Amino acid sequence: MEYKITVMKNAFYAQSGGVTSVINCSAYGLISKFKKDFSEANIYASKNGIVGLLEGELYDLSKTKKPLENLLEMPGGIFGSCRYKLPSLEDEVFYKNLFDQLEKLFIGYFFYNGGNDSADTCLKVAKAAEKFGYDLKAIAVPKTIDNDLAVTDNCPGFGSVAKYVATSAKEASLDIKSMCKTSTKVFVLEVMGRHAGWIAAAGELANNAEETFVHKILLPEVNFDEEKFLNGIEEDVNASGYSVIVASEGLKNKNGELYSSNSEIDSFGHSQLGGLAPKIASLITNKLGLKNHWSVADYLQRSARHISSLTDIEQAIAVGKAAVTLAAEGKSGVMPIIKRVSNNPYDWQISEGDLTEIANEEKTLPKNFISECGFRIAKEGITYLQPLIQGESFPKFYNGIPIYEGLDLHLRKI
Amino acid sequence: MEYKITVMKNAFYAQSGGVTSVINCSAYGLISKFKKDFSEANIYASKNGIVGLLEGELYDLSKTKKPLENLLEMPGGIFGSCRYKLPSLEDEVFYKNLFDQLEKLFIGYFFYNGGNDSADTCLKVAKAAEKFGYDLKAIAVPKTIDNDLAVTDNCPGFGSVAKYVATSAKEASLDIKSMCKTSTKVFVLEVMGRHAGWIAAAGELANNAEETFVHKILLPEVNFDEEKFLNGIEEDVNASGYSVIVASEGLKNKNGELYSSNSEIDSFGHSQLGGLAPKIASLITNKLGLKNHWSVADYLQRSARHISSLTDIEQAIAVGKAAVTLAAEGKSGVMPIIKRVSNNPYDWQISEGDLTEIANEEKTLPKNFISECGFRIAKEGITYLQPLIQGESFPKFYNGIPIYEGLDLHLRKI
Repeated sequence: MEYKITVMKNAFYAQSGGVTSVINCSAYGLISKFKKDFSEANIYASKNGIVGLLEGELYDLSKTKKPLENLLEMPGGIFGSCRYKLPSLEDEVFYKNLFDQLEKLFIGYFFYNGGNDSADTCLKVAKAAEKFGYDLKAIAVPKTIDNDLAVTDNCPGFGSVAKYVATSAKEASLDIKSMCKTSTKVFVLEVMGRHAGWIAAAGELANNAEETFVHKILLPEVNFDEEKFLNGIEEDVNASGYSVIVASEGLKNKNGELYSSNSEIDSFGHSQLGGLAPKIASLITNKLGLKNHWSVADYLQRSARHISSLTDIEQAIAVGKAAVTLAAEGKSGVMPIIKRVSNNPYDWQISEGDLTEIANEEKTLPKNFISECGFRIAKEGITYLQPLIQGESFPKFYNGIPIYEGLDLHLRKI
Repeated sequence: MEYKITVMKNAFYAQSGGVTSVINCSAYGLISKFKKDFSEANIYASKNGIVGLLEGELYDLSKTKKPLENLLEMPGGIFGSCRYKLPSLEDEVFYKNLFDQLEKLFIGYFFYNGGNDSADTCLKVAKAAEKFGYDLKAIAVPKTIDNDLAVTDNCPGFGSVAKYVATSAKEASLDIKSMCKTSTKVFVLEVMGRHAGWIAAAGELANNAEETFVHKILLPEVNFDEEKFLNGIEEDVNASGYSVIVASEGLKNKNGELYSSNSEIDSFGHSQLGGLAPKIASLITNKLGLKNHWSVADYLQRSARHISSLTDIEQAIAVGKAAVTLAAEGKSGVMPIIKRVSNNPYDWQISEGDLTEIANEEKTLPKNFISECGFRIAKEGITYLQPLIQGESFPKFYNGIPIYEGLDLHLRKI
């Protein structure tokens, strides 16, 4: 007679930083795989990122009755996210408390789903666990619309916002084209991207060999030359009757300072952006006297699950699942990354990245992705971007709008 | 032996005013039906609204080879639109020239696809034809995202923008909900609607019996009470942790003047960059100190064919077809209108409206559509709005974005 003795530790999962339209797809991949591979353990999702753990509020996912597949169609972070900077490892009291909290639920796996700042959080937790002797595997799961994580070829969340931007810019361009004879001649679409122009670059994907829908792209990587820009706009309007601009919120002036700044500062010391589009529009009105319109996509772009990229969804699920595999292998301080195997046909696989090379790093657009004039994306950039927006996966609609049903969440206070 | 003698006059079709994501569906309905019912006549589409006629530039649709069905998936006005006010009937030279232009192509049917101003244009042409003895049937085809045309129950173009606003507001709301614990607590989405709040009202459709996604709607019909609004936002944030606002660009202050105007000067002596959303956001920052984000949908909302309402598409096609029927009946100075037959199940039919009752009129939200507090839509309003956003008709995608192929257009100069 055999006795099977299993001491499987439980898992902690949290969403962190700005959310995306597919972060819940990573949650799906991770939770479903953990439930399968660690069938005798439980997984808890933290309410509002790591804050839920610190405040003792977690969701007990063993009690959830609705199908996990609902996560595949739900934008935002279903468990709540946070912007919260962990103290340095010197803060013994903080980390002892954190591990006490994990201990209460017998947690041995710490999954943290976020961007650069979250990779830093996860790395700190991994190091602290080692330092304070708590048995914990801390694994980051990549997510950011900004696509600025180092080591990974691209980031889940980006492909969908890229698809949204390319689609919206093309649609707006067809609108302006209709109106330009007697009315609006210039349209400015402001998109996110503090330091890296990946999202704005996706505007280039609106174009094809036959037709230009987006005429100018303003990137944080290229200091803004007002005169050259205004001349370019005039040329566009003379040639086509109109001009469409996709501008990154993080555009810099000729001195490399933020072109449009706002004094507010977030908890990581980043200034909160916004208001670039009206500033560019105002410049065009004042200097060229051309009638213009502008739009600020803001949260609409990163929550637009109704037009998410299927490739992005598949990659988001894959990194979630891979995190569980890394955990099972006993890894810590690592992150599943996406590796591009080939461009045509596009092929990718999941690999492993070291958090020390990822935390707080920022990957900007390589120079060869930017056209010589500085206002367009070069062929290399298009080759890189194009595969990431491929495929559609429309959500279910009810009564005219997406359902976005979500899960039943059962809070466990500790 | 019989001889069939046919002297079928040709038709003129033009798109006018701000375009929509489904105005080309009306073009499809009209052109395809005209080609069928008036098979021996030709139809010309004016380049850039009536301006094309005046400047002698029209597209000869008999030469178009691509399938007209391409129009069903294409946002913007494929033939180009215009904002152009016709002179009064006293201007004999203008109208004689206009009819000379029509005469050159043997045109007996004048179809004008637009909103209130365009109805005025069409009515003037109808009256001028009568006054100057030119044999012409002038028929308007309704189109406006603003939904503010009199007589018709609703306007083609509106249902799609309503679907976009309800969907986007719901998505952004899920995003804010995720972030509100440690970050953004208020989100403002600015939508179009200068004098009528129909589009903003559609934000209410994001909500359902179980959950509130949109907490406040700011309408041009309700003078803005800052204090009451700020109290309401505080209540939302206290109750739910966050608040989502859908605001009409045409919001008025307590004196009934436009709340957001460009006349203000900032501390650098520059005119304020404008935009209602940043102004509301700024108010919230200054008075409540709550972190907020804002978005201005602008042209994105009215060109978003990727999320058009199927009901809207069907109605846009139907009014196009009905215009041809009215022409065949020898009517002039009229417009096909949509008549609501029943709410549940929603049923509608096409009827006929007199342009003298439509031109330059504006239909605002009825009082009973607005909740008592002034910040929400009442049940009567929801009952009216809900059917208009029903059904999806996603466009074909290629390489990650909608194709929007359009037609081959063949210019004929006269």
